[in-house]
Amino acid sequence: MTLLVAGWVALDEIETPFARVEGSLGGSATCAALAGAQFTDVRLLAAVGEDFPAVEREKLAGRGIDLGGLTTVPGGETSRWGGRYHYDMNTRDTTYTVLGVNEKWQPVLPEGWAGSETAFAAAGDPALQRDLFRKLTAPRATMVDTIQFFIDADREGVEESMRAADFVSINEDEARQLAGTPSIAKAGRALVAGGAAAVVIKLGEYGAAYIDEHDYFVAPGYPLEEVVDPTGAGDAFAGGFLGYLDSVPAAVNAGEIRRAVIYGSAVASFTVEGFGPSRLLTLTRAEVEQRYREFRALTHFEAGE
Amino acid sequence: MTLLVAGWVALDEIETPFARVEGSLGGSATCAALAGAQFTDVRLLAAVGEDFPAVEREKLAGRGIDLGGLTTVPGGETSRWGGRYHYDMNTRDTTYTVLGVNEKWQPVLPEGWAGSETAFAAAGDPALQRDLFRKLTAPRATMVDTIQFFIDADREGVEESMRAADFVSINEDEARQLAGTPSIAKAGRALVAGGAAAVVIKLGEYGAAYIDEHDYFVAPGYPLEEVVDPTGAGDAFAGGFLGYLDSVPAAVNAGEIRRAVIYGSAVASFTVEGFGPSRLLTLTRAEVEQRYREFRALTHFEAGE
Repeated sequence: MTLLVAGWVALDEIETPFARVEGSLGGSATCAALAGAQFTDVRLLAAVGEDFPAVEREKLAGRGIDLGGLTTVPGGETSRWGGRYHYDMNTRDTTYTVLGVNEKWQPVLPEGWAGSETAFAAAGDPALQRDLFRKLTAPRATMVDTIQFFIDADREGVEESMRAADFVSINEDEARQLAGTPSIAKAGRALVAGGAAAVVIKLGEYGAAYIDEHDYFVAPGYPLEEVVDPTGAGDAFAGGFLGYLDSVPAAVNAGEIRRAVIYGSAVASFTVEGFGPSRLLTLTRAEVEQRYREFRALTHFEAGE
Repeated sequence: MTLLVAGWVALDEIETPFARVEGSLGGSATCAALAGAQFTDVRLLAAVGEDFPAVEREKLAGRGIDLGGLTTVPGGETSRWGGRYHYDMNTRDTTYTVLGVNEKWQPVLPEGWAGSETAFAAAGDPALQRDLFRKLTAPRATMVDTIQFFIDADREGVEESMRAADFVSINEDEARQLAGTPSIAKAGRALVAGGAAAVVIKLGEYGAAYIDEHDYFVAPGYPLEEVVDPTGAGDAFAGGFLGYLDSVPAAVNAGEIRRAVIYGSAVASFTVEGFGPSRLLTLTRAEVEQRYREFRALTHFEAGE
């Protein structure tokens, strides 16, 4: 089966209290695609400019990602993002955003891609996200993400896209804001009551919470001693979550969703070990499975009295 | 067996964005003692002034707590604390602290109390904490807690008390500060490397992390929709943790410690449902067991591939 990932491929300038990189491979779709490729075949739908380095394209191809949907816009500039992390690595400032080719690009699905069984619409224009989902002929699982920028620009559109997907992936702060409550549990349930089928609230170093009408599941943060760069971890979560679900032959059920949350968390925990998606370029499935087992060891306990 | 709880009994003035109370039963030892009483016999070692209301004393006695060590200091004033919570309920300002009788009080163990099997030294003067542990004749498990105030006043003393206990209970921010690192995992391991036998880092609404030389265990935050008042939840955690361990007939092993972390988390999650320890005054063991089962349902998942 196949996971279609649509979103941004970008070049990032990232500064942490300990190091900085410039012109580094980044973008929501990049991280999600590389994470998904741990589990299944991935197709990448995104646009770059003529300035996008061939070496970065080769990195993606080298992980088996189908780049038939990675369009180079003639005369266009690749999107660029700059971010600076604070001492605790949990908060950051966006120092600049260059929209570049993503300001006007209208994605076109390559021949045969409408049949992709699984799809992730990374943060982006909500109208384009819904357009993508509508084009899919028989999706088994879809997920949508967003960021503050799109909530500010088109809140109703964001909410409509959330209702159009099987799963919503969203950061804690944005979930609180959309639901108008400081409680994570209440925010998650409010988003479900508002029409989202299921919501994963990403809690950064504290893990993730999965909420649907019948289930509530919490994954811990993996106890990393050194966080190099949190950029892209949320997108890697989504890619790992959907990539695992795409690889499951049977119907998607509650047990498999819980496993997908842990696989997503495991891949995300590796992502923060390097700048941008760099760690995902060397990650093996055996390492992912080992970390999955560590998540079990971290959280399981015996029945009560 | 018996759990000895030493610390402060106080009268609190608490303001949240939604309500406020004044002259309300509070104090670290109060919350820990009431939480421990869910599981075992509890002895309370603390001082109050002549202004301490008889009705509050009766509330404690009504939960079966042995008040033979609750001294009324003649002419003394009960400690008072004022706090105001921010909108997210995760951060608060201390508006005032009246030390009252706790400024000078030197605890004296009542006859027979040195034989208590389990003991919690709630946040307080580190010299008094160590003094308490030294007086115990055959303790099975001891735990120490602290707050910013005592770290600022006597950091070396706090670290010495941590080394004197079997378990350290500490808030996330204070752990990061003591260890000089933003990473929770690194902070916990640094405290253990510094001589603490085991550390529980309390993560507020995100749960708790347990770290010793051989084990790392994470308990999630219980997904409460309405938090009335977080005051005392950390002390209730400690009381529930030690109270459960005190009730275990066999030796304290890794499996029992994990269960104790969950029992502590369960009792703490009830605590925030009311102002100060008020919810603990009506809490039943059946409710605690139900919530323990919910923690399992929240966190457990099947093995990987």
